[in-house]
Amino acid sequence: MNRLWYGGDYNPEQWPSDVWDEDVRLMQRAGVTVATVGVFSWAKLEPSDGVFDFGWLDDILGRLHAGGIRVDLATATASPPAWLVRAHPDVLPVTKDGVRLSFGSRQHYHPSSATYRRYADRLVRAIAERYGQHPALEAWHVNNELACHVPRDYSDESAAAFRAWLETKYGTVDVLNDAWGTAFWSQAYGSFDEIEPPRATPTFHNPTQLLDFDRFSSDAWLECYRSEAAILRSVTPDVPVTTNFMGFFKASNYWSWAPELDFVSDDAYPDPADPASPAYAAMTRDLIRSVGNGRPWILMEQAASAVNWRTRNGAKAPGMHRLLSLQAVARGADGIMQFQWRQSKAGAEKFHSGMLPHGGEQTRVFEETVAIGEELKGLSEIIGVRQEARAAIIFDWDSWWALEQEATPSRLSYVDIVFRWYRELLSRGILVDFALPDADLSGYSLVLAPATLVLSEASQRNLAGYVEGGGTLLTTYQTGILDENLHVLLDGYLGELRSALGVKVEEFAPPAEPSMSGGPVPTLVIQGLGAGIAREWGEIVRTDRAEVRATFVGGMLDGLPAITRNTFGSGTAWYVATSPDDLRSVLDSVLLDCRSLEPASSLPAGVEVVRRGDFLFILNHGTNAVTVEGVTVQGRDAAILRSDGAPTSAASSEST
Amino acid sequence: MNRLWYGGDYNPEQWPSDVWDEDVRLMQRAGVTVATVGVFSWAKLEPSDGVFDFGWLDDILGRLHAGGIRVDLATATASPPAWLVRAHPDVLPVTKDGVRLSFGSRQHYHPSSATYRRYADRLVRAIAERYGQHPALEAWHVNNELACHVPRDYSDESAAAFRAWLETKYGTVDVLNDAWGTAFWSQAYGSFDEIEPPRATPTFHNPTQLLDFDRFSSDAWLECYRSEAAILRSVTPDVPVTTNFMGFFKASNYWSWAPELDFVSDDAYPDPADPASPAYAAMTRDLIRSVGNGRPWILMEQAASAVNWRTRNGAKAPGMHRLLSLQAVARGADGIMQFQWRQSKAGAEKFHSGMLPHGGEQTRVFEETVAIGEELKGLSEIIGVRQEARAAIIFDWDSWWALEQEATPSRLSYVDIVFRWYRELLSRGILVDFALPDADLSGYSLVLAPATLVLSEASQRNLAGYVEGGGTLLTTYQTGILDENLHVLLDGYLGELRSALGVKVEEFAPPAEPSMSGGPVPTLVIQGLGAGIAREWGEIVRTDRAEVRATFVGGMLDGLPAITRNTFGSGTAWYVATSPDDLRSVLDSVLLDCRSLEPASSLPAGVEVVRRGDFLFILNHGTNAVTVEGVTVQGRDAAILRSDGAPTSAASSEST
Amino acid sequence: MNRLWYGGDYNPEQWPSDVWDEDVRLMQRAGVTVATVGVFSWAKLEPSDGVFDFGWLDDILGRLHAGGIRVDLATATASPPAWLVRAHPDVLPVTKDGVRLSFGSRQHYHPSSATYRRYADRLVRAIAERYGQHPALEAWHVNNELACHVPRDYSDESAAAFRAWLETKYGTVDVLNDAWGTAFWSQAYGSFDEIEPPRATPTFHNPTQLLDFDRFSSDAWLECYRSEAAILRSVTPDVPVTTNFMGFFKASNYWSWAPELDFVSDDAYPDPADPASPAYAAMTRDLIRSVGNGRPWILMEQAASAVNWRTRNGAKAPGMHRLLSLQAVARGADGIMQFQWRQSKAGAEKFHSGMLPHGGEQTRVFEETVAIGEELKGLSEIIGVRQEARAAIIFDWDSWWALEQEATPSRLSYVDIVFRWYRELLSRGILVDFALPDADLSGYSLVLAPATLVLSEASQRNLAGYVEGGGTLLTTYQTGILDENLHVLLDGYLGELRSALGVKVEEFAPPAEPSMSGGPVPTLVIQGLGAGIAREWGEIVRTDRAEVRATFVGGMLDGLPAITRNTFGSGTAWYVATSPDDLRSVLDSVLLDCRSLEPASSLPAGVEVVRRGDFLFILNHGTNAVTVEGVTVQGRDAAILRSDGAPTSAASSEST
Repeated sequence: MNRLWYGGDYNPEQWPSDVWDEDVRLMQRAGVTVATVGVFSWAKLEPSDGVFDFGWLDDILGRLHAGGIRVDLATATASPPAWLVRAHPDVLPVTKDGVRLSFGSRQHYHPSSATYRRYADRLVRAIAERYGQHPALEAWHVNNELACHVPRDYSDESAAAFRAWLETKYGTVDVLNDAWGTAFWSQAYGSFDEIEPPRATPTFHNPTQLLDFDRFSSDAWLECYRSEAAILRSVTPDVPVTTNFMGFFKASNYWSWAPELDFVSDDAYPDPADPASPAYAAMTRDLIRSVGNGRPWILMEQAASAVNWRTRNGAKAPGMHRLLSLQAVARGADGIMQFQWRQSKAGAEKFHSGMLPHGGEQTRVFEETVAIGEELKGLSEIIGVRQEARAAIIFDWDSWWALEQEATPSRLSYVDIVFRWYRELLSRGILVDFALPDADLSGYSLVLAPATLVLSEASQRNLAGYVEGGGTLLTTYQTGILDENLHVLLDGYLGELRSALGVKVEEFAPPAEPSMSGGPVPTLVIQGLGAGIAREWGEIVRTDRAEVRATFVGGMLDGLPAITRNTFGSGTAWYVATSPDDLRSVLDSVLLDCRSLEPASSLPAGVEVVRRGDFLFILNHGTNAVTVEGVTVQGRDAAILRSDGAPTSAASSEST
Repeated sequence: MNRLWYGGDYNPEQWPSDVWDEDVRLMQRAGVTVATVGVFSWAKLEPSDGVFDFGWLDDILGRLHAGGIRVDLATATASPPAWLVRAHPDVLPVTKDGVRLSFGSRQHYHPSSATYRRYADRLVRAIAERYGQHPALEAWHVNNELACHVPRDYSDESAAAFRAWLETKYGTVDVLNDAWGTAFWSQAYGSFDEIEPPRATPTFHNPTQLLDFDRFSSDAWLECYRSEAAILRSVTPDVPVTTNFMGFFKASNYWSWAPELDFVSDDAYPDPADPASPAYAAMTRDLIRSVGNGRPWILMEQAASAVNWRTRNGAKAPGMHRLLSLQAVARGADGIMQFQWRQSKAGAEKFHSGMLPHGGEQTRVFEETVAIGEELKGLSEIIGVRQEARAAIIFDWDSWWALEQEATPSRLSYVDIVFRWYRELLSRGILVDFALPDADLSGYSLVLAPATLVLSEASQRNLAGYVEGGGTLLTTYQTGILDENLHVLLDGYLGELRSALGVKVEEFAPPAEPSMSGGPVPTLVIQGLGAGIAREWGEIVRTDRAEVRATFVGGMLDGLPAITRNTFGSGTAWYVATSPDDLRSVLDSVLLDCRSLEPASSLPAGVEVVRRGDFLFILNHGTNAVTVEGVTVQGRDAAILRSDGAPTSAASSEST
Repeated sequence: MNRLWYGGDYNPEQWPSDVWDEDVRLMQRAGVTVATVGVFSWAKLEPSDGVFDFGWLDDILGRLHAGGIRVDLATATASPPAWLVRAHPDVLPVTKDGVRLSFGSRQHYHPSSATYRRYADRLVRAIAERYGQHPALEAWHVNNELACHVPRDYSDESAAAFRAWLETKYGTVDVLNDAWGTAFWSQAYGSFDEIEPPRATPTFHNPTQLLDFDRFSSDAWLECYRSEAAILRSVTPDVPVTTNFMGFFKASNYWSWAPELDFVSDDAYPDPADPASPAYAAMTRDLIRSVGNGRPWILMEQAASAVNWRTRNGAKAPGMHRLLSLQAVARGADGIMQFQWRQSKAGAEKFHSGMLPHGGEQTRVFEETVAIGEELKGLSEIIGVRQEARAAIIFDWDSWWALEQEATPSRLSYVDIVFRWYRELLSRGILVDFALPDADLSGYSLVLAPATLVLSEASQRNLAGYVEGGGTLLTTYQTGILDENLHVLLDGYLGELRSALGVKVEEFAPPAEPSMSGGPVPTLVIQGLGAGIAREWGEIVRTDRAEVRATFVGGMLDGLPAITRNTFGSGTAWYVATSPDDLRSVLDSVLLDCRSLEPASSLPAGVEVVRRGDFLFILNHGTNAVTVEGVTVQGRDAAILRSDGAPTSAASSEST
């Protein structure tokens, strides 16, 4: 398609057919190019077991095609019908407390259900065979937000699948016993049959069991995708297949998912009330581009304005919907889709905004819908353009799962820590890739590895080799503490990274919890680089060869290193043993080591600058006008500069 | 009876019989006229299946009668005995997670249990036949606080009853599918058999299923009442029947309950530590009078001092028990009863105060018990006197249930919003009725309809007609958004009210949650009427004909209407699109439109003035003396003025 | 043994055998005298049903013996193997909601399981027979922290055991009905068969049922201990048997446990981040010494530095591990053991510190391990020395359980209240015993009985008799409200204590909850002794003969007594009806009544002074140097003075 995707989920089955013609007319007015159809249509497509009714969908697809709207056709497997659940309650998910969930919302099935898979596959095949040659068909959309409400299932059927997964992974139970460290707390297994999912227990679970169950659960859901995709591909080898991701979604390791998709797509619902949302959204776009290995992707769902599932759901202020849309394009998206086209009048999401709201055409939301469609038309040349980042942040689901387990040194948030570092790069206009710790990093001038708790020996060596080969690496506390089985890297942690960093970590010493003191938040004091306070972390570090760039002051850490720098081979390795409030000065110093990284200036607060191919996007998420690169951009406005200097669609911005 | 009811729950079975004579003596001393007997006596009346023991109760009733105490005789069905539960565990309630609750507290049965109903009916008949002609019998007291601990039951038996209720309501499953909007999320049902209660699900339930389950649950409990009442009436057609309500109790729609009661009675436990309690109690009394269609009612339970079920249970300060008692009489009560007569010495409520406390006769609580009894004697002329209010507030359980569902624009409290408006009327001494939105409102000069989320077309028309006919209506945000099936009223919300109000509502835009900002509470700013800040709500309103009386300042709502006023027919309709801190000035302006409402002056804080027939009650809930209507009333004291000007029992007050 | 125990849990099964020799070498370097072996070895000792493998343990015990390390040998019953649980899921515990917990952590069995008990007994016998004559054997260590994760079990098997326990206690169900007050809420039982544990119910449980279930649960776990101990004693009558307590552990009434142990041992994990930890630890040591009737005891577990189960786990600052170790010795310990010797490299406690940390020998933690070992060598003469306290605090599990039940006047913390009074004695250097309310108190000059809610008639008389005989008693609000069946002591509470105290308590009137006011924390104001504010409690007290030493000011308690003093017989009895912030002045006045108590001076903050035999310990938990008894002690340092004036091992302290 020579146009950016623009449109949304389209659920005509919720409306009488006389609305359908108006839908096509208004989609045309809004510049809609693609509609996602059928996501929750199972009950309507198969009203009883094995009886299919495609007539209405034929009608819809015909109307859309006639109107020039392409179709992202869903497999409709996201919500099995009532008759199926009633006949086969074994499809229902079970919580860790043993509660079997009920029909009445959505995603009421578990991924290891053979029954569910059999019915879903039959439906997918029927849809593929009926619509595989339809002229409106642009892509297949498998299921919907797989795993979102049932990240893990504890049913007996999932337990059996978990055991099979473990047997495939470990081969013998002795290997599993070693990996899980079952000598601790008398947990040795005599056979795979004895193993259960980590259901409710008297106290802390075996950590490796937890981690393997996280890995298994991600894989089990991925299997649902793969099963559908295989059928679709067997029927229509040339039609691309996707499923919609959910950004930083803990349950699904998208590094393993993305290679299975013909193109990656993502759903994003930043909270309009949170001032950090634009930065967080930028980080999410970069993750999604990265897991897809740099391939352009589709923003498959966002809200035109409010959502309805927070405790308080603010509207998107005028301009915000546009800015977040342009941000996605700037960070690699080839399409901007919304949930949903027409706001529902009934059901659990009727208060979730639509491109066409309850109020109809004469509303500010629909006016923005039209304006965004118009603007995206002018950006068609960007389709397919890839970006090269010179900086990377290590992001790994294993470390995420492990860092946030029970029974750790401190309750930390992996994504929060990563985000703090990401924002420092964002505020300097530096494009960031995310990468696995064992990825080829040689193309990056700078690699950050914050709180990368889990490092296999290969990853340790990869990071050390990156430094040795001339790279600049910054890593932090809670990195390289554990190997891939969550066994401690003894004698100073960090494993093979120790020599690159020139330090050993001896002991963790975070400050007291805010709740403990009863008074002001307990902090550590840092002098030198990043001088000021730290609220989350301190530890005892012993330097070997490393240069000390900051030290702790006072308390039991008095005089000990807080930040160190070490040259190793042709590169430099920084270690940050704390969580300074002032990351800015730290990164400024680190960037001096990255000669090949383009000089980075600090941008005004709330301003984002991204280049994608010939387009330079200046996005002002703030409410006041700013001047950047010689261009004045109003509050909540954007400028898009072409390489030849001509402004594009940014009507309201002006060169100075 | 020519005396106000005064007394309390009397549970002699908890005490040796030598205490019983002292009880009668002290009741006489305290001016007790009525004792509620037998509420939790099932196990003692029917110690094993079908074996009844009435001897002790004969004795008790005889002693009470001899002492001149009338009896409100309970049916004893509130707590089935252990033998019944052990033999029939199917009577036990089941939570939404599938946990079957156990014996060991009270109300351990669910309302749809055929077994429970069979046993309860047998007991009720036995009691009715034995005591129906007893000379002490004043009234029948069915069960106790129906639904209080088991507002909803999710057992299979209740599921079947729910299905039957739905079939009765909808006739065919297609009608239900339309009403519930099951086209959303693939929830269509092929038959009623497929439907379950809203048990634990992966995510948000179908909203109409939730609402219908709320309605069903209210009805199921009402059926328990009706079943008992029918037996009682068949045996004793002339003895009045009641059951004790619980004020603003969300689970039971008392509008549908109250017509089934010969007289309404209510339990009220305002927190003595909460300064808002007297106002909240006033509101509750007005609700109870209103659901009973203005009939005098009985305050069936209150505490003489502390309760025992809050995390901290303060005592009622001297005077507070009296004031809350007089307040009930002032607002329509013909009786003041307490839980309970003699404070228990064992069991789960032993720390709940009694009229006769652990400390015995020589206590300040018993002294107040005696004094209140004495004072009530002087108010006998008020019995049966009804009151006419000129102002009404719409209060509807459908809107309550719907507004506080999952997946709404914002987590709001219906009763809190209603209470904020109620207090404005209270502080001006304006008596308030509550009314359903489809009630005849023609007698009211002013009708407030705050956050009346659900409006059927009939209700929309009723409210619009009220304005057209000359009434003054004030309504607020989150009114008329949904119809009775929770389908959105499209094209501006408000339905038939739009033309009366002269506005359309385009989009909701509440301020950010306090938790989001990390700093001060986010607010909206209003100028004009109600100038200042709003913490809970803002939205985009478009005026048609309405006059704008306040606007938002700053942010995305800058310059948009916050409060509007519209003349329509012979009346006036106000729309308040926000939640100003300053409601006072808003109501002052609205009252200018209500010419027939008696001029309302603002009362000192904590002072309540109510007229009932010839009696004018001036209640000072504050701790400092005030002068109102020329009468000085001390802190926590009351003055009761007769129409002829003579002070009644308010011994400690004095005319100035 | 002529050396203090010093060492820790030793889990060699988690490590390859080549680590074992290094372990012995480093234990010797650290002065380790005892290792606790086998606590979680069941799966390794009995890898399948009835197949025992002792070879590895023979090896370990041999190496330890050769290295001069004595062995505290565990019975390994704390964590049943996977094969056992898989074959017998009936051993698994069940929650009050009916959830059967799973294998995968530890303590996954319930104490009433006949299956568990049969398997455990077989294992214990096998271990006892194999190692009973082993030359390294110093003591038997039964199970581990019995009840810690499963304080109560609600399985059907436990229900049956509960019924049997009740039948033994009450004989007939009529006696139980009286004791439980089942006349309340229609709870009468017709037979023991009808009784269940207090599982999830619609509302508050029967209080006496709750209390009896607490008592039963403590006894059920004690039975596990007794069963194992009986086997051990039958095989090795001369080897002492212990199990490790957990300080103020609510689920286990250690007064009934301790007499069953040959010596008491205790696990203690004060939070290093909490400034109150040293005082709380002191209180715990005194409790443990007291439940053992003054016998020296073993600190069986503490952490060398951080634990891993709080949400944030701080390190122990340098010196803290030593100070807490010396504190235990000063308060009666004959041994200082740690969990664990070598920090784990895998499993759920790998982040729990060890004597030998992940970092190995060259770490500050191991250096402290060695230094403490060295210092303890110099204290061997203290072994077996007992201490005499002249002050006692009443501490009773019945009151603990009852005070913190549902449906009480206020949510109070028994231990918090006790701790507030304890700290007043601690800060004056007064050694405290804890005692039961019916214990012989004649040896004490001062007895405090804070919030001793439950007092049997015997206990009431015992306390009154103590005063009459010349003692000084201070008691507080919420004392003597209930008897041992939780029946109210009518007519003023306090029972037989009323005359000793010269007061009656009429009514409770705590201030409002902080959450209620929305403003500053509500308080009561006191004048006189303890003048200032109180945050938790007030009440109406009527004095009889007592002298009023403080009164409430303002509010409903204005002018009423807050603190009273009464002479009774030869003694004095104080009643404190409130919770003054200033307890210091209160205790100063009370101490004037205790002539035989040695003059108590106030110590600097954070400083603890304790005498044990010839040794005077001055422990400075603060961070600044202090001078006490003429000795200057640095921050986080200690001085140990011999009676002959010679300083002992306190190398870093100096006489002034």
